[in-house]
Amino acid sequence: MITCDKTRMEEKIKTFSRFGDTGHGGSTRLSLSPEALEARKEFIRRMEALGASVVWDDLANLYATIPGSENLPAIVSGSHLDSVRQGGNYDGVLGVLSAMEMAETIVKNQIPHRHPITVAVWTNEEGARFEPAMMCSGIICGKFSKEEMMNSEAKDIPGYTFGQALKESGFAGDEGNRISPDRCAALIELHAEQGPVLEAEKKEIGIVEGVVGMVNYEFTFTGQADHAGTTPMPYRKDALYAAAQGILYLHRELDQLDPSLVYTTGKISAIPNIHTVIPGEVKITLDARHRDMAVLDQVVEIIEHMPKEFAGCSVKTEKAWARTTVQFAPWLVDIIEKSAAKAGYPAKRMYSGAGHDAQYLCEMVPTTMIFVPSEGGHSHCELEHTSLQQCVQGVNVLLDAVLEIDKK
Amino acid sequence: MITCDKTRMEEKIKTFSRFGDTGHGGSTRLSLSPEALEARKEFIRRMEALGASVVWDDLANLYATIPGSENLPAIVSGSHLDSVRQGGNYDGVLGVLSAMEMAETIVKNQIPHRHPITVAVWTNEEGARFEPAMMCSGIICGKFSKEEMMNSEAKDIPGYTFGQALKESGFAGDEGNRISPDRCAALIELHAEQGPVLEAEKKEIGIVEGVVGMVNYEFTFTGQADHAGTTPMPYRKDALYAAAQGILYLHRELDQLDPSLVYTTGKISAIPNIHTVIPGEVKITLDARHRDMAVLDQVVEIIEHMPKEFAGCSVKTEKAWARTTVQFAPWLVDIIEKSAAKAGYPAKRMYSGAGHDAQYLCEMVPTTMIFVPSEGGHSHCELEHTSLQQCVQGVNVLLDAVLEIDKK
Repeated sequence: MITCDKTRMEEKIKTFSRFGDTGHGGSTRLSLSPEALEARKEFIRRMEALGASVVWDDLANLYATIPGSENLPAIVSGSHLDSVRQGGNYDGVLGVLSAMEMAETIVKNQIPHRHPITVAVWTNEEGARFEPAMMCSGIICGKFSKEEMMNSEAKDIPGYTFGQALKESGFAGDEGNRISPDRCAALIELHAEQGPVLEAEKKEIGIVEGVVGMVNYEFTFTGQADHAGTTPMPYRKDALYAAAQGILYLHRELDQLDPSLVYTTGKISAIPNIHTVIPGEVKITLDARHRDMAVLDQVVEIIEHMPKEFAGCSVKTEKAWARTTVQFAPWLVDIIEKSAAKAGYPAKRMYSGAGHDAQYLCEMVPTTMIFVPSEGGHSHCELEHTSLQQCVQGVNVLLDAVLEIDKK
Repeated sequence: MITCDKTRMEEKIKTFSRFGDTGHGGSTRLSLSPEALEARKEFIRRMEALGASVVWDDLANLYATIPGSENLPAIVSGSHLDSVRQGGNYDGVLGVLSAMEMAETIVKNQIPHRHPITVAVWTNEEGARFEPAMMCSGIICGKFSKEEMMNSEAKDIPGYTFGQALKESGFAGDEGNRISPDRCAALIELHAEQGPVLEAEKKEIGIVEGVVGMVNYEFTFTGQADHAGTTPMPYRKDALYAAAQGILYLHRELDQLDPSLVYTTGKISAIPNIHTVIPGEVKITLDARHRDMAVLDQVVEIIEHMPKEFAGCSVKTEKAWARTTVQFAPWLVDIIEKSAAKAGYPAKRMYSGAGHDAQYLCEMVPTTMIFVPSEGGHSHCELEHTSLQQCVQGVNVLLDAVLEIDKK
């Protein structure tokens, strides 16, 4: 089995972590920011040096293509270079660097391949500067209107839009360069797991079968704001007491469903939120995810049958949004599994709990993902870490899978 | 029993509700704001027309004094004219108008009295513009440093201090005019109850024996912020789940104490408070009040013996502050009780759950309070209401009590 070069991979990780370096182990590389543009330029310089021709589409998505020996659609791999504010050095960028190292190994070792090999960079995956997340893969796949997205306002500069940033970046290219089914045979995105499962189960490779479906709800508990000192307990309608009961109710009920369900009450707001006033209104969110939509239906049923009152306060439930489970191309998933087995890396089939560009792109082209472990499950923070050895293992699986696909 | 004039009282309430009228049933009359100064000027105009001499001290506290027939310390009654933002037409101002109507009844009916009768207005009771509440009675009674208070910054105008507002108001008078034990025989503050008890128990008059003691705590629940989609339930340390358990624990334990204990978890904050992230840290406040300090000691004991962990998250408890129960002068409380009985108004001995200037001033001069009902218990909002009949009843009790004190 051909493998990549560990020293080269280490150098790539070190170099790219300098773009937007926070100075304490992380990066802030917001989409189309000067730091992100520097990283793009380094990407282009390196890929051109490798003999790739680099183009970009109207959304600044980059495609660096090494020609194949036959006139076939490309095998594509890549991820994103943007990060959240004070993010780590692995989320997104690792998928780009892995694809670069995969391509470099093929070129440097003069490995014959029939298909062109494209390393791709998707614009604005995080949505940390311009909402929403996965914006540009989403536009390509018809999830968002391009016109609306162009007006998305930067969180760091009031009035500054994604459209303006795109124009100023010099990366507003030709729409004809967008990824398309006729020019792409397969797409593989390598990514850090962003969770603790691989590490805890001592697995090195996550074979990603799809992205879990989810439902999002908002609960509003309405009581009566009254004076903390003058209102005897029996007269109270304390919306925070009600919300606390509601949270425990949800845990009690949802814990009876399939144990791989994850659900989170991540956000809470109270009105008036003053220590001397009984809370009159409290809102909480619920985010529930599972690969099996039937389990999410059970979640919805529990919410719909929730008591309409806790602690004398009314409860209103509102569905915010939902998405169905995304299934990746089974034949590609199988290839990843075989490549991991061939290398002897302990691997695990799993679903991604987080969103990725791959979940939109898989509707257009055959797609799957490879996960490598996240130390301590840390993600979207400076603590983010995957060992060099694990990164290299990920590239090796990617490389082998690309060469396997090339045989088809 | 001599009674006040209902029509006159109605006119007073209507006129003063125009200063800072919000246009929908309430008032915004922040301390020393143009609206509050207008109300002060109307107060002075009316009291001088009644034959009072009006002075103010170095903190803009007003004292309008009708002379008595003997050289004795004054009987003082009053409250405050400032309101919270979008407050009602009763909190504070009713105590001033009641004292004015009491004085007007005595003057118009030429009722002989040995003591001077002073109608007082305390500056910045609410603390809604310049913190803290009860600022100027607090300075007089040594609770706060005058120098520090002068630097208290306005919430509505950055950099603008209480000291500047005081100077600009024209009401920075002579420190020698402050209320003092040698010039004050007794102090009675009439106030709306700000709670639902009198209304619910069909009582017309609250005979206020004191102000409840209180303890304030902050609880910090510390877990681990992780991705809502990628972190299986067994790996989580959800600080909001922990806080919900903590709130229920507090209710379960504190509900076993004396039923007249009131306690409130009024404020909650979560970090990072994003619907797709498991809360890593949640803070809640606890405000507990009771007239019997031994009950508050039990509250403290429950908090100190609280589990140090909920849902895998650590719990840190921190005492924010506490105040001991304030006892009003028993002989004055008895006089109020007798006056209410004489008038035939259903009355109830009670403690104030809210803070009032009287709680500081009672350390300097014999003090008590009279409560009148708050419709629906509403307070600090535009819904605040006490019927005209109930206001008049309050004035009648105040008037009779003043004349009783005058006999001593």
